[in-house]
Formats: sequence, structure tokens, C-alpha cells
Amino acid sequence: MALGEFELIRSFFSPPSRRPDVVLTVGDDCALLTPASGQLLATTVDTLVEGVHFLSGTDPRRLGHKALAVNLSDLAAMGARPAWVTLALTLPGADEAWLTAFSKGFLELADRHGVELVGGDTTRGPLSITVQAMGFVGRDKAMRRSGAGIGDGIYLTGELGLAGLGLDIALGRTPLRSDAATDKLERPEPRIRAGLVLAGLASACIDVSDGLAADLGHILKASGVGATLDWQALPLPHEVKRHCEDLGDVTFPLRAGDDYELCFTLPEARESDLAALLPEFGCACTRIGRIERESGLRMALNGEIRALNAAAGYQHFSS
Amino acid sequence: MALGEFELIRSFFSPPSRRPDVVLTVGDDCALLTPASGQLLATTVDTLVEGVHFLSGTDPRRLGHKALAVNLSDLAAMGARPAWVTLALTLPGADEAWLTAFSKGFLELADRHGVELVGGDTTRGPLSITVQAMGFVGRDKAMRRSGAGIGDGIYLTGELGLAGLGLDIALGRTPLRSDAATDKLERPEPRIRAGLVLAGLASACIDVSDGLAADLGHILKASGVGATLDWQALPLPHEVKRHCEDLGDVTFPLRAGDDYELCFTLPEARESDLAALLPEFGCACTRIGRIERESGLRMALNGEIRALNAAAGYQHFSS
Repeated sequence: MALGEFELIRSFFSPPSRRPDVVLTVGDDCALLTPASGQLLATTVDTLVEGVHFLSGTDPRRLGHKALAVNLSDLAAMGARPAWVTLALTLPGADEAWLTAFSKGFLELADRHGVELVGGDTTRGPLSITVQAMGFVGRDKAMRRSGAGIGDGIYLTGELGLAGLGLDIALGRTPLRSDAATDKLERPEPRIRAGLVLAGLASACIDVSDGLAADLGHILKASGVGATLDWQALPLPHEVKRHCEDLGDVTFPLRAGDDYELCFTLPEARESDLAALLPEFGCACTRIGRIERESGLRMALNGEIRALNAAAGYQHFSS
Repeated sequence: MALGEFELIRSFFSPPSRRPDVVLTVGDDCALLTPASGQLLATTVDTLVEGVHFLSGTDPRRLGHKALAVNLSDLAAMGARPAWVTLALTLPGADEAWLTAFSKGFLELADRHGVELVGGDTTRGPLSITVQAMGFVGRDKAMRRSGAGIGDGIYLTGELGLAGLGLDIALGRTPLRSDAATDKLERPEPRIRAGLVLAGLASACIDVSDGLAADLGHILKASGVGATLDWQALPLPHEVKRHCEDLGDVTFPLRAGDDYELCFTLPEARESDLAALLPEFGCACTRIGRIERESGLRMALNGEIRALNAAAGYQHFSS
């Protein structure tokens, strides 16, 4: 099969334009877009590389979903409403079945959040996917990492550690089986609704992609504070608890990445506001710890406090 | 050497913020940007893959320049003023010397055009570079591919075929030597100034990345017209003419890609406006042909008209 670059992009990634703020979409030198009036443009970019961020042979429909989800998750962490997205796809060849499935997973999630694909590039090379997502947030509502205050509660949406368990299952590191864990790893749901509710309410927010310890560590560093987590309060599904027992390692859920939940901090005075808005989240939300003056990250378990390495999450290029 | 992903990005790609429209830059979940009031946001994304878009071992400073230049060139073709850029870099390892040189080439060009790097991602994998550039253009000034009218002149900035010759030199396909050709291949200058002048003046515009025949072909197709080029009028440097003679192929400059010049069309009635503005281009500009009713692309040479294959340019995935 010989497909030109342009035909290839057009045939799989040219859904009809639905957003009135898209003046010109895929197919010219640039897309032309009308920014939301009086709002800030939030933008984020993430690359997924085969063999590094996903396993070779990953279902392409799930991969299309995930490539977009991880970027929408960054917008959610900022409290932004997603609007537009671009896709740069590097492929070893033009496999129609793969492209059909990948574009389906990608565009289904985009549609569900009213996001429009406005540009892209398709190149030949080792499989990798770079997505840039753009959205809008009110000038005073954006949630930065640097806003956590001493005494703030630390909260987490959804559950923790399932994606990490899913990875250990995929890598044959455990005899456990859990469809929920595999789904969480391959089809994370970006917490867009929760992010929109939290904008202007939370004092700081981040999405958990590299592990709770590492990502909360970024908030602590940017805010110049420390924290203690309450292990008993962590929203751990039963299979994750079981995995911790098997590993003999209670820190597993703090190191496991890829959950794409939101970790945020909230001043005590806003707790009742949060309680009133929780039904709009579309997911669970749990208080898991407290911001403190003393720097560093600690964990309380069985009446004992132990120090955690905030940089324990996954990092590229680490030896 | 063990460098964390975050330190790596920060150390090489965190120039001080200079643009007042950048509210929050690299280092949080998203960048926060203030769009220009009343203008359209033009956005474009391009990936360069080692071994496909550049040769293995390419000088990293030149590569950093080129990765940004090809994207700024797309903004120029739309008549947009560049503002912000994101960089997704996939690297086999953290080579400090390489990163120093690459970031230098990238940021020097960005500085020269007042562009700010506002986000990025660094991942481990086979070397590839994805850049998304964003800029602004007046609502009625953007130059689309679809605006060419019958009788319009066809123009080209700069010179044609030098980058293609540079590639043939690099690949050992010719005994010719030309620093100008190698420079054009490795350090193309995006025609930002020309694009800003042409916005609101040219009827259609594209940048020549895949070869003049292929790229002009996009204008013809989008505008529903045809064209005849005058070979004698093509701005061919002497070494490109010599290469054509060696190859025994006068179509070489029409097929050669990577020049990143602007090809645009102009109604006859605007010719005097263009003449008055030419000194602001910062580069040469030549009339090379005419838009016609009859579809297809033709070339006039020695009193003879021959048909050209508009799709003769480089395409990925072609067999």
C-alpha cells in the first residue's frame, strides 16, 4: 500500500469541524483559532515512545485514548477547559488497521470532551506520539504547583496504584490478575470535570503521572513546604493492597505512576465548599494528608512516621 | 551521568521569560499564556526524525536551529507573527554537549524572532524532535492556500534548489561542493518578515518544504486552478544550474525540498503594492509564473510547455 503523507493524515484524522472557534483546521500551513476572550491559554505537550511509555503491541485504540488522556490530564491539573489538540505521529509504516483503531480511540475521547484535532504531522520512524493540548482557564482560577499553604489538606481523586499494578501484571512481575488494573493503565480517564470544579478552589494541583511521592514532591518544592501522608487514608483498591502485601512494600502505591488522578491541596476554610461540590467531580475524592512547615515528605503508618523519598517516581535517563 | 528528566529540561531550556504575555512558563503542568486580543491564533506542528528528516550525526546546533526554523516557516506562510513554541525532544541519552549545542541553536533563532519556549517534554528513545509553534495574525490577513485567482502572478522568495543540492552533496550524489548549499540545508532562515509584509496582500501562500512542484500543487488544488512556471525566471544559483546540467534534469529544482522559501500568488492589481514593500522582505523575491484556469502544473522552457507532476516532491510512506 502506498499512501501519501497528506492522504494518510486526512483520511484518519479529519473529523468534521464542530467548534465555532476553529476558523481553519488540518490541511493548511497552520490551523487558525479564535482564543477565548479574557481567558488564559493553557498549553501542554507530552510524548509517548514505544518501549518507554507503553509496551510494544499495545492495543492501538487504547493507545490513541491514552496519548490524548495524558495531555488532557495536564489541562485538568491546571483547571483548564480543553479546546484544541495537535497530534504528531511517527510510525514505522502506514498500517491502515492500526491507524483506524488508533484514531478511533483518540477521537472518541476528544469528542467526549468537546476537543477538536486542529493540526498534525505524520512522519516515518520508530513509533512515537506527541500530543499538544490547549485549553482555557480564568486568569485567577489556574491551579499552580506553588500555592500549597501550611495546614492545607492534601486530597486525591479516584484510586491509587491501580495503573502501577496493571504495569506489573503486563510485565509478568505478579501472578495477580485485574482487569481494572489493566484498564487503568491503558485507558486512564483525565479528571477534567474535577479540575474545572477545583479551579479557583484548590490552592495547588498536579496530576499523578510519575507516582504520588514524586508528583506531590513537585508541589512541596514549588510551594516551599513539607507534608505527611496518612497511609491508612490512601484510596487503595483491594488488589493494590494485596500487591503491597505480596511485595512486602507499603510504599508501592506512592511510587507507582500512570494513575492520572489529581492530587490537590485545599485550605481548611474551603473544606465545606469542596464538600458541596464533590457530587460534580464524577469520581471519588479522598483526604490523604496535610501540608506542614517542615520540609520533606513523610508517611504515617501504624503510629509511626517514616520519611519518603519524594523523587522515588519514575524518571527518564536516571541511572 | 544521571540527570532527572526535570533537571535536564530546566538546565538547557529555561531561558528567562521575556514576553509579557507569558504568565507561567516551563515547569508546571501547563504554560499559561495571554493570547493577542482580537487576533487569530495560528498553530503548526512538525516532527524531525533522525535518518528521515536529517542525517545521523548532524551538527546539533544546526539541528536545533532547523527544528525551530521549519515551524516558524509555517507561521510565515500564514502571515503570522510568531510568539510561543513548545519542544518535545526524544533522545537516546542525556548527552550534555549535544544538549548544550542543540539548545543554543534553538534558542538563538527563537531570540532573534522574539519567540519564547513555553513548554516541553524530554523522553528517552530514538532521536526525534517535535516542535509546535504558535503565533498571531489578523482575522482578515491570514494567507490560506485556497485564495489563488486566475491571472495571479506566482512569486518565490530567496533562491531555489540550494537545499536539495546540499542534500545531494551530503549523500555523496555529486562531486560539487558548496557551503551555501550545505548552509541552506542545515540552517534555513524562516521568511518571517516577508510573511508579515505579505499578510493581507498575497492571495495564497505556502512554504516550500516538499519541493516547489508539490507545494505549489497544494495551492493549485486548494484554489481549483492550474499554473505555468517559467523555468528561465526561477531564481537558481549557479551551482544549482550546474547540478541540473550534471543530472541532465531541468526539473531538479522543482522536486528538491527543504528550501523553506515562501511561494505566493498575487493579483496583478497588487503588483505595485508588492514592489513598494519589497525592501522590507529582507530577501530577494522573484516572479516565476502565472495562475491559469486550466488545471495542472506546467513549465515553459525554450518556447516549449511541458506538464509537471505536482506530486513529485518528497512524501513519507510512498513506495
